[in-house]
Amino acid sequence: MSTTFTMVGGEGPNSYQQHSKHQGALLEASKERINEAISTKLDIDFTSGLISIADFGCSTGPNTFAAVQTVIDAVEHKYQKDIEFQVFFNDSSNNDFNTLFRALPPARRYFATGVPGSFFGRVLPKNSYHVGVASFALHFVSKIPKGVRERHSPVWNKDIHCTGFSKEVANLYLDQYKIDVGSLLNARAQELVSGGLLLFLGHCLPNGVQMSETVNGMMIDIIGFSLNEIAKKGLIDQEKLDAFKLPVYLAHADELKRIIENNKCFRTEVFEKISHSKEEYQLDSDYLTLAFKVTVGGSVASYFGEDVMEKTYEIVKEKTEELLPQIANAKPGMQYLIVLRKT
Amino acid sequence: MSTTFTMVGGEGPNSYQQHSKHQGALLEASKERINEAISTKLDIDFTSGLISIADFGCSTGPNTFAAVQTVIDAVEHKYQKDIEFQVFFNDSSNNDFNTLFRALPPARRYFATGVPGSFFGRVLPKNSYHVGVASFALHFVSKIPKGVRERHSPVWNKDIHCTGFSKEVANLYLDQYKIDVGSLLNARAQELVSGGLLLFLGHCLPNGVQMSETVNGMMIDIIGFSLNEIAKKGLIDQEKLDAFKLPVYLAHADELKRIIENNKCFRTEVFEKISHSKEEYQLDSDYLTLAFKVTVGGSVASYFGEDVMEKTYEIVKEKTEELLPQIANAKPGMQYLIVLRKT
Repeated sequence: MSTTFTMVGGEGPNSYQQHSKHQGALLEASKERINEAISTKLDIDFTSGLISIADFGCSTGPNTFAAVQTVIDAVEHKYQKDIEFQVFFNDSSNNDFNTLFRALPPARRYFATGVPGSFFGRVLPKNSYHVGVASFALHFVSKIPKGVRERHSPVWNKDIHCTGFSKEVANLYLDQYKIDVGSLLNARAQELVSGGLLLFLGHCLPNGVQMSETVNGMMIDIIGFSLNEIAKKGLIDQEKLDAFKLPVYLAHADELKRIIENNKCFRTEVFEKISHSKEEYQLDSDYLTLAFKVTVGGSVASYFGEDVMEKTYEIVKEKTEELLPQIANAKPGMQYLIVLRKT
Repeated sequence: MSTTFTMVGGEGPNSYQQHSKHQGALLEASKERINEAISTKLDIDFTSGLISIADFGCSTGPNTFAAVQTVIDAVEHKYQKDIEFQVFFNDSSNNDFNTLFRALPPARRYFATGVPGSFFGRVLPKNSYHVGVASFALHFVSKIPKGVRERHSPVWNKDIHCTGFSKEVANLYLDQYKIDVGSLLNARAQELVSGGLLLFLGHCLPNGVQMSETVNGMMIDIIGFSLNEIAKKGLIDQEKLDAFKLPVYLAHADELKRIIENNKCFRTEVFEKISHSKEEYQLDSDYLTLAFKVTVGGSVASYFGEDVMEKTYEIVKEKTEELLPQIANAKPGMQYLIVLRKT
């Protein structure tokens, strides 16, 4: 049984749609740099009068709508003529597209389409869009490295994610991550028109910082701890838990930079740390628990069931409350804007 | 409150996905004529190596996949070269796209995209596809004509659809239908490339036959009768029922032909009655009740609630059983294939 990673669907109080402000703030802070990149680096021929934009890992909104609108505004400002826009919203086929479609801005000036499929592979035709965007999508691996999930393997990882403390485990994750980001970039290189731009917004680890030293890592460690408590109570099978690993890898800034530069289809135009006031999570156990429920909670629920997930997050909340002083001293993560141009 | 008309979603025993064989049989019977039309009439330039196909009113499958595959096979047979295919699956934004996406054929050779929005208006960019298909989509109106829903209006229609017996009511529906089919064709004319084809599969009334003389009409009359029984029991408000009208109008063959010919963006290449063995419904009350539950049932449920719908269909089943001898003597409907070429 593999672990999926899909944001919690719907529009309910525990949905990703309602709790993704943290992710949205990075876009807001990057707007000017995105405008500038589109203004100076986008270099396309569009005799057809159509500009197409693709958003990868769109989830259910609303951040995807804001990202797409930012690109449209910048393109309109640059070309100042009558353009039709088409937007491809991509996410895995178990994403809640129904909620996404119902949430589309009524006054949008673009034709909206949903594209189901893994962004590690091709999901659109050759030369089919001019600008691609991916927000918080560059910290996944397509599968858990071999040996990491098996308790009797020498590289078994007792944690539910790559904490960074075992160099061996981290290297296995990094190897898989290189393959996956490589596939993702190669797929986009085929889909994107020549001179088109690929924008990545997201977070990584500052060089030298371990995952478990950041709030992200600490919260995932708390989720792992809580699942262990649930296993001790006999509510889930310990062996099943041993094999539960999140398909997540937060690269160090230099690792990510090098992987991207190794891909010869693109030229790196921007690779910048973006600092803004909402960069760090609020130090509030309710807020933190919910923020990691709408994201990681979906994986827990699809692997262990909805009921176990709810029980686990009760413990997560208590433990977060208890560990707030440590969380307050976490090392900061790093948020970035990356702009690549297809050569 | 307006009446929507969306097929019942999901994959359950009462879903459209499980009970649309009747609609699928027409495609099967039209395959050869479609191949021929694509082979002799499709006249497009595709230097990009991409052929795009759009299906309007796709619902949740599987008929849409069969229709699209028929077109792809015909195009590949015609051009015999390496082509990438993109398919736009369109339906209203309250269609169950999640189920559609999960049902996509795993071995498909096309990039799948979902397009939410009413096909009476534009949903895709200019010149964005080469072949458009619409199966059982040309018997809707976008709204109920004025006066028809109001009990005290001189043209109030006591039935839940246009039975054909009141000339005045029928003319109002026809006027609205002309506007709607005109809008639909104008939208497609902008979206379709020059030389591209539009295929319509569906059913209409043979000239001179009234809606309520066909199985379709009789079944809808039975649903209307059953809703009246429910109102008599006090389970729904009579006034609310008085205003419940299905946004459906089955044109007579000549009406439809004339409306299409009046649109100067297209040339009618094929307008043919298609006869096949599964053309008529099975004379079985279970089958008939279910066939009209996965289609009309959705409208009843969204207007009156799921519970009223279920209770109504219990009566529908009894009444269908009782009226089977009359249904057996219904006048046949007409199924068609229409092929239009954008001039």
